Amino acid sequence: MRATVMYQAGDVRVEDVPDAHLIEATDALVRVRRAAICGSDLWPYKSMEPTESGRRMGHEFIGVVEEVGDDVRTVTPGELVVSPFLWSDGTCVFCREGLQSECLHGGRYGFGDVDGGQGEAVRVPQADGTLVVLPVGEDDALMPSLLALSDVMGTGHHAAVAAKVGPDKTVAVVGDGAVGLCGVIASKRLGAEQIILLGNNPDRTALGREFGASDVVTERGAEAAERVRELTGGLGAHSVLECVGLEQALDTALQIARSGGAIGRVGIPEHESTPSGVAFWKNASIAGGPAPVRAYIEELLPDVLEGRIEPGRVFDRVVDLDGVPDGYRAMNDRESIKVLVTP
Amino acid sequence: MRATVMYQAGDVRVEDVPDAHLIEATDALVRVRRAAICGSDLWPYKSMEPTESGRRMGHEFIGVVEEVGDDVRTVTPGELVVSPFLWSDGTCVFCREGLQSECLHGGRYGFGDVDGGQGEAVRVPQADGTLVVLPVGEDDALMPSLLALSDVMGTGHHAAVAAKVGPDKTVAVVGDGAVGLCGVIASKRLGAEQIILLGNNPDRTALGREFGASDVVTERGAEAAERVRELTGGLGAHSVLECVGLEQALDTALQIARSGGAIGRVGIPEHESTPSGVAFWKNASIAGGPAPVRAYIEELLPDVLEGRIEPGRVFDRVVDLDGVPDGYRAMNDRESIKVLVTP
Repeated sequence: MRATVMYQAGDVRVEDVPDAHLIEATDALVRVRRAAICGSDLWPYKSMEPTESGRRMGHEFIGVVEEVGDDVRTVTPGELVVSPFLWSDGTCVFCREGLQSECLHGGRYGFGDVDGGQGEAVRVPQADGTLVVLPVGEDDALMPSLLALSDVMGTGHHAAVAAKVGPDKTVAVVGDGAVGLCGVIASKRLGAEQIILLGNNPDRTALGREFGASDVVTERGAEAAERVRELTGGLGAHSVLECVGLEQALDTALQIARSGGAIGRVGIPEHESTPSGVAFWKNASIAGGPAPVRAYIEELLPDVLEGRIEPGRVFDRVVDLDGVPDGYRAMNDRESIKVLVTP
Repeated sequence: MRATVMYQAGDVRVEDVPDAHLIEATDALVRVRRAAICGSDLWPYKSMEPTESGRRMGHEFIGVVEEVGDDVRTVTPGELVVSPFLWSDGTCVFCREGLQSECLHGGRYGFGDVDGGQGEAVRVPQADGTLVVLPVGEDDALMPSLLALSDVMGTGHHAAVAAKVGPDKTVAVVGDGAVGLCGVIASKRLGAEQIILLGNNPDRTALGREFGASDVVTERGAEAAERVRELTGGLGAHSVLECVGLEQALDTALQIARSGGAIGRVGIPEHESTPSGVAFWKNASIAGGPAPVRAYIEELLPDVLEGRIEPGRVFDRVVDLDGVPDGYRAMNDRESIKVLVTP
């Protein structure tokens, strides 16, 4: 079959790989119908050391179940399913607590003998714990938003939950990438009163306004913090969603949080350390991490199916498998917010 | 009147100062009956630059109201009152949210024209918002625990709240000082199932066991983390109370927190920065800061009055005003956990 392999920074290829096939009795074989390129795929795209064997890419996909192992009970061939970006058994102590990202028997796509999502098919380990059946047929209009449940929408929601978003809360979202935009959707959905989006790409912030942002702050650093203070009666935001992962973004998040506020961070920290005192002296909490997307799919799915949220609108480019390398380039050059792949 | 003044590191004197007196209509004049020396008083005791005018010391006290300003409604002369370690108006947006430590019109004792608590009397600003009337007479047996409500007990409780302590939770308390010991009391009171106290002073950890600690870990650093893992089935603690403020203590707290756990920190951070990734990758939250003790007094007071908690047992030495300088020395030398002052 054909699948995406990265060999080093900037070197992404689509090539023939061994066909995906069942190995464990708990596996499902899923024929990929839609996949995505993730902001986190850009980190190896910028920095990966050369390797001979390459690394299979992709961890966001929806597809049709083709075959299941003997122990699989909850999905059957022919069903359309979405996979969260991590696989998990659904039964360990962490899965039962809704923290599937810490599953004791889970793992990541594209590593070991597990396929990546940017290819024709994927062997999904722990299929019962991982996959969620979508109670719809393949509907072109819905597919992008269903696909967003595999990562960005759940990740934006996780940021909002970690930042304690709720009714009457003032929210600031740092970052106008796909996750930040989904953070706006999540904040609106959770009833936030005011949503301030910090970003400076006009197309993205315009989409953010459509998703529910009440204000846009294009400044950076101290000026951004000053603007947020002006917009919040001098107090700062109750909830801050840090959706970037760069040091400046977290510094901004710390500055704009109101005393007693909460910072939810989902941007993978690219920096070594965080100032210790800023959050402490204002009694602000910092929470978040890799999103347990699996925990959120059932909650978010009805809103997608009924059109109340449309996270799929963050996809602004569609490519076929052969177009994946150019998709990476386009996202890396910030030509595209997020690329959808139709294998 | 006589009061405690610090002139530089190691130089604490008790000397004549102007009598405390009402200035604002919202003030109360309180005759101090019991005061305390705080762990945080040891920071200037270790590091304060020399000053000519000196700095008035003390922020934990209970006393009898002697006189009130025209606008004071909730306390009257003759009543026994406890003051939280910060004064606050009780009406601003933060006070109404229970975050009196961020009061827009509040402040600290010992600064400006506000007296310190380690003296004969204190002018208490914003008396209505600050003081809590104690519905008892001066009872020698109860006084230490009532005094503990002014800071350490509320601070330990704040750490426990920030660390999301509750029934069925495994708790680790980092630090066997007065605040850490009160963190044990608070964790027990909130129903924690297992309470692991990290400390290596035998007298203090013995008291910690009496307060409810189920295990004591005397190791430090990586060995301490290993011991906590052993005691928690390899998973770490749901709730970690960081009651020290030193870099190693926070590092230990980050290491011993379970995935998805919560760190509540109340130790004043003496370090510049915190590693960004440790908490992120395990989805652990970090919360806490200066405790809004005022918010907790009413909740904790019945338990003190009825003897269910005895935080006053952290006081292991009593001095009169003239003994205050030696009290500082004893706490700094770790001869004493916490010193009670009877002016």
